[in-house]
Amino acid sequence: MRYDGLTPAEVRALIRREEYTGQTSGLCPGYAQANLVVLPKEYAYDFLLFAQRNPRACPLLEVTDTGSRFLKDIAPGADIASDLPRYRIYENGVLTSERTNIADLWRDDFVSFLIGCSFSFEGDLLAADVPVRQIEEGKNVPMYDTDIPCASAGIFHGNMVVSMRPIPYELVPKAVQITASMPRVHGAPVHIGDPAAIGIADLSRPDYGEAVTIREGEVPVFWPCGVTPQNALLRSKPSFAITHAPGHMLISDVKNVNLKY
Amino acid sequence: MRYDGLTPAEVRALIRREEYTGQTSGLCPGYAQANLVVLPKEYAYDFLLFAQRNPRACPLLEVTDTGSRFLKDIAPGADIASDLPRYRIYENGVLTSERTNIADLWRDDFVSFLIGCSFSFEGDLLAADVPVRQIEEGKNVPMYDTDIPCASAGIFHGNMVVSMRPIPYELVPKAVQITASMPRVHGAPVHIGDPAAIGIADLSRPDYGEAVTIREGEVPVFWPCGVTPQNALLRSKPSFAITHAPGHMLISDVKNVNLKY
Repeated sequence: MRYDGLTPAEVRALIRREEYTGQTSGLCPGYAQANLVVLPKEYAYDFLLFAQRNPRACPLLEVTDTGSRFLKDIAPGADIASDLPRYRIYENGVLTSERTNIADLWRDDFVSFLIGCSFSFEGDLLAADVPVRQIEEGKNVPMYDTDIPCASAGIFHGNMVVSMRPIPYELVPKAVQITASMPRVHGAPVHIGDPAAIGIADLSRPDYGEAVTIREGEVPVFWPCGVTPQNALLRSKPSFAITHAPGHMLISDVKNVNLKY
Repeated sequence: MRYDGLTPAEVRALIRREEYTGQTSGLCPGYAQANLVVLPKEYAYDFLLFAQRNPRACPLLEVTDTGSRFLKDIAPGADIASDLPRYRIYENGVLTSERTNIADLWRDDFVSFLIGCSFSFEGDLLAADVPVRQIEEGKNVPMYDTDIPCASAGIFHGNMVVSMRPIPYELVPKAVQITASMPRVHGAPVHIGDPAAIGIADLSRPDYGEAVTIREGEVPVFWPCGVTPQNALLRSKPSFAITHAPGHMLISDVKNVNLKY
């Protein structure tokens, strides 16, 4: 592939110059990618508290200083306003535009939240011969609204959103152990088996992403999903918010293996 | 013992009525005890961010809604203003009084932070035949200032404080594994061996707590300590803060074993 062998910093530089504006899936294998939420400071306490109270669904990898465009920890020097390929702008909870750079929108009261993503544990699943169906089928992972309530915090509230991977029965304990070792990217499953038990009516109709094949002898396994905080965010309709566009994430300098420790 | 067999809720009720005002060490074995920090809302964002950035030293078990005196999660219904045996009041970073009840000081802008404590993993160490020297010697655990910087957040900054337990060389890997399984109560050690490597000059002179015997064939093992956030708190001199008095902690309804998951 054209981008094989590039470091996360090199890919971020391409993105910054808008020489790469596509999805980040598959780029820099082995390195963690992060969801982005940018909020004015007036909402930051409630959002930080929502994350603290719902760490499984909303594992924070980094929170910036107020007004800072630059990351210090997971990708030192990365520019939040230009180093993701695509952003979404929300005003009062309504998507109003999509952009490849948000430098001209930047405000001194912005706080950025970088949130871990379950993609980080899929490499370990595959390495251990646990199938990851949506990768096999070239699809986006299926995600579902549930009736599992999140702990609310100030204006932020909502139910947990989960991602689903069908796992052969005999590999379920291994899948639990592998993912449990990475709590900073959602960790162990929240539910195994009957979708109705967590309020999911029909696995063939995901609320986000795409349905995948569930084969004979496989059980649906559900993990807390980073769409949870985005959903809580949009439901609460803050006056202004910026997120990454789906699939267009921050590529960090953190190796997935280091998310175990 | 007089309090054997009482539930955490029963002991908290005794404490609430001031029928018990002593240290909580040894009460309700198997249940997690928590450190308390109460701050006016104006400091809460910085403190929450400090905890997010330093999760090893400052593992939050619960953060209350602003103004709420009552816990919802780790000890539902527990009254923060009366259910700890002893509190310390700080004004501009100076200890001004110690009390057994803070109901008359309560303000609608208070936020309470309950912080995990390494006592929670000592039961597992003992159960696995790993010695815990300060318990053997009937002392408070020795704690030391280090030169390991914390990530600062707003007004809060400082170096990590560590607790030390001497462990026989052959048991060190086991001690690492046991404590690593409980990240919500500080988790794995931050350092094993030479104290000078983390800025500790003399193990016989701890900065907090009491020195313990280190025997032939034992190595000092250092864990992040909950005194870290208290120190950062006092250094930054907020106008007002309340903490538990040392050793006089909140007894939660959370079993230590459940802190692993």
